[in-house]
Amino acid sequence: MVNISFEGTESFLSRQPDKKDVQAAFDTLVNRTGAGNDFTGWIDLPENYDKEEFARIKQAAARICSDSKALVVVGIGGSYLGARAVIELLRSPNYNALPKNTPDIYFAGNGISGDALTDIITMLGDRDFSVNVISKSGTTTEPAIAFRIFKQLLERKYGAEGARSRIYATTDRARGALKTLADREGYESFVVPDDVGGRYSVLTAVGLLPIACAGIDIDRLMQGARDERTEIRFRGIESAAVQYAATRQALAQQGKSIEILAAFEPAFRFMAEWWKQLYGESEGKDGKGIFPASVDLTPDLHSMGQYIQDGQRMLQETFVFFSHASASVSVPADEENLDGLNYLAGREMSYINEKAMEATMAAHISGGVPVTQIRLARICEEEVGALIYFFEFACGVSGYLSGVNPFNQPGVEAYKKNMFHLLGKPGY
Amino acid sequence: MVNISFEGTESFLSRQPDKKDVQAAFDTLVNRTGAGNDFTGWIDLPENYDKEEFARIKQAAARICSDSKALVVVGIGGSYLGARAVIELLRSPNYNALPKNTPDIYFAGNGISGDALTDIITMLGDRDFSVNVISKSGTTTEPAIAFRIFKQLLERKYGAEGARSRIYATTDRARGALKTLADREGYESFVVPDDVGGRYSVLTAVGLLPIACAGIDIDRLMQGARDERTEIRFRGIESAAVQYAATRQALAQQGKSIEILAAFEPAFRFMAEWWKQLYGESEGKDGKGIFPASVDLTPDLHSMGQYIQDGQRMLQETFVFFSHASASVSVPADEENLDGLNYLAGREMSYINEKAMEATMAAHISGGVPVTQIRLARICEEEVGALIYFFEFACGVSGYLSGVNPFNQPGVEAYKKNMFHLLGKPGY
Repeated sequence: MVNISFEGTESFLSRQPDKKDVQAAFDTLVNRTGAGNDFTGWIDLPENYDKEEFARIKQAAARICSDSKALVVVGIGGSYLGARAVIELLRSPNYNALPKNTPDIYFAGNGISGDALTDIITMLGDRDFSVNVISKSGTTTEPAIAFRIFKQLLERKYGAEGARSRIYATTDRARGALKTLADREGYESFVVPDDVGGRYSVLTAVGLLPIACAGIDIDRLMQGARDERTEIRFRGIESAAVQYAATRQALAQQGKSIEILAAFEPAFRFMAEWWKQLYGESEGKDGKGIFPASVDLTPDLHSMGQYIQDGQRMLQETFVFFSHASASVSVPADEENLDGLNYLAGREMSYINEKAMEATMAAHISGGVPVTQIRLARICEEEVGALIYFFEFACGVSGYLSGVNPFNQPGVEAYKKNMFHLLGKPGY
Repeated sequence: MVNISFEGTESFLSRQPDKKDVQAAFDTLVNRTGAGNDFTGWIDLPENYDKEEFARIKQAAARICSDSKALVVVGIGGSYLGARAVIELLRSPNYNALPKNTPDIYFAGNGISGDALTDIITMLGDRDFSVNVISKSGTTTEPAIAFRIFKQLLERKYGAEGARSRIYATTDRARGALKTLADREGYESFVVPDDVGGRYSVLTAVGLLPIACAGIDIDRLMQGARDERTEIRFRGIESAAVQYAATRQALAQQGKSIEILAAFEPAFRFMAEWWKQLYGESEGKDGKGIFPASVDLTPDLHSMGQYIQDGQRMLQETFVFFSHASASVSVPADEENLDGLNYLAGREMSYINEKAMEATMAAHISGGVPVTQIRLARICEEEVGALIYFFEFACGVSGYLSGVNPFNQPGVEAYKKNMFHLLGKPGY
């Protein structure tokens, strides 16, 4: 369960968030009466997800694990970040390099770098691999380019027939270029639901298939999300998620326009990237929006830490801390103690990390940065599922509180139009 | 050579930076007359670096390459980020996984995560390895913890004598816990110069030894820095570096308080982290400072792109683009063209990436975000060395323009004091 503490923000709030506004935003979200309500399927998804498809996802993952040493996941934005985030957090940022009985996972088609794509081809070598192509339309440029290339590689290696059984398409239920191709070729297909936008889709097949291929228990992941949803339904605006939304908006109204998400595990780096998409893309509209940034602590205390402590005072910080570490590593004793570290001899690193967290929180608060503290028990499927739902729900409330539609992204069309024109795409 | 274009900023500047102020900041820097002038050794380092030590670095790297399959680099902040940034950019973010005739490189002691440290030990396996411990004082907590653990591992594997020949210490020239230990044990040692602060130290032994171990030509890297220094000395305040500094400050004075560094190669991710330390730690003082953030394009156009296009208009953006890509990858043709991509068939991905960059620049400018464009010829040692020096020099000028000491970091003491108190360190 997601626990939250606002003790580090109270002294900064000149007035508490207006309960009526918070209730209104909450009601708008759960009653589906606000802008973008067509894209609120994620709210009840942990209960009403497609159970048959869920079982098929697990079967597909089992098949991939048995016939492939590598999985290439082709997708961009919401069709990529969530899966990478969860895999790196629940397995490791070094997942591919560590011993395991699941395939290596490579993320392609999330940019236009030939170097990055070439690296993946090199790393695949001549190993058996499969491809999960994730694209609602099938026409988004970056994944479409990568899919052409990896499909060609599969066909050269396995023939057209063999390639077909190694391509898994996550796409629109009924329409679009990828759905058309998948139906014709007989790719095993999964659905990007019509009522769940990309950045809210990690708990759909979009995220779940790659995540399952990494050996993660997606039943437990979904259970965690379901429990957090239950908690929010029970507590309403007093829930941690809604209070987080209300607090960050209230702080923003007092000029804390940048929110820095700070975690104390390097494995959290891509969860922070996922969070930045979720909040940045949901709220960055109409000249508004808290600017989302992230740091990796304690490393970045030796980097951005100076700015957080003493720079412009437009910051609010949100810590994410896991109370119980996985690994048990303690500081060795040393006879000579030249480095002065013997006062820590025998201490667990997790204990030192926690004291560093507390110390940093106090320092930043003294420096004028309000700090919200999110705590989870440990890095495990249930807690990560809960955190995902927590952030998704809070984002919806936060967006409505700030007066935007949290579920569209009209701004991303501008560069695309320009790009298609420069590339000579017909019609542009 | 670092080329820069301000065509994307001109329409935003209500008035050009004041030449007198810019000249004054430049003079203060190059004449060493400003605050922190004790730490300006990096200015002339590409000319006056220790040539004997430089040769020893290369010899040490050769030894490590011959007797080790892995190198563990222990260090934090400036003793870590620069090396990782350069290795990932010049070799690959997937360096360890790619075929090569140099050792795998792992970065330890840059945080207090037991999970991260345990991962490294697992990945080392029973392979031969060496350790480069980088710490001016030898007492910074995170690397001190990691060094105790890896030194112990080395001693268990090779005995005390064998371990000594596999430890390379980069530390103070004369004093401190690590220097004392290194002298006594006979570790090959290198110098963290007294007049170069951590975030400015990548072109000292701090960065150069790990970088050389990755097979990178450090002569060429230094040559690039030297050439950029020559360019700046020749052009003075009209140089790209000074104009970048002046422009970013001028934009900040008009309310563009966040600078987003945007590159079009995922390999640049840690260069951006290095840049954030350089600028954040130099300028985040006295309630001032442009807030440094970064994005990876085009991936983040499907993430933070909405915010950049339409969110709060307090943003300025700096693009970094490499004109010539390393890999040559073109888009395959497809008979059926279901994905509509045939208009790109045969096009190089590098061409498409460049059009995406131009399209994005135009879109963001239309949206109200000034865009400075930094261009380099290609990802190679000379260009990367030049870019490093460019950013370092510009940072010094920028800091003085904003009225701070760019070369200290007093704010990082606050959390440390708290942490030592909570941990029961004697004296706290």
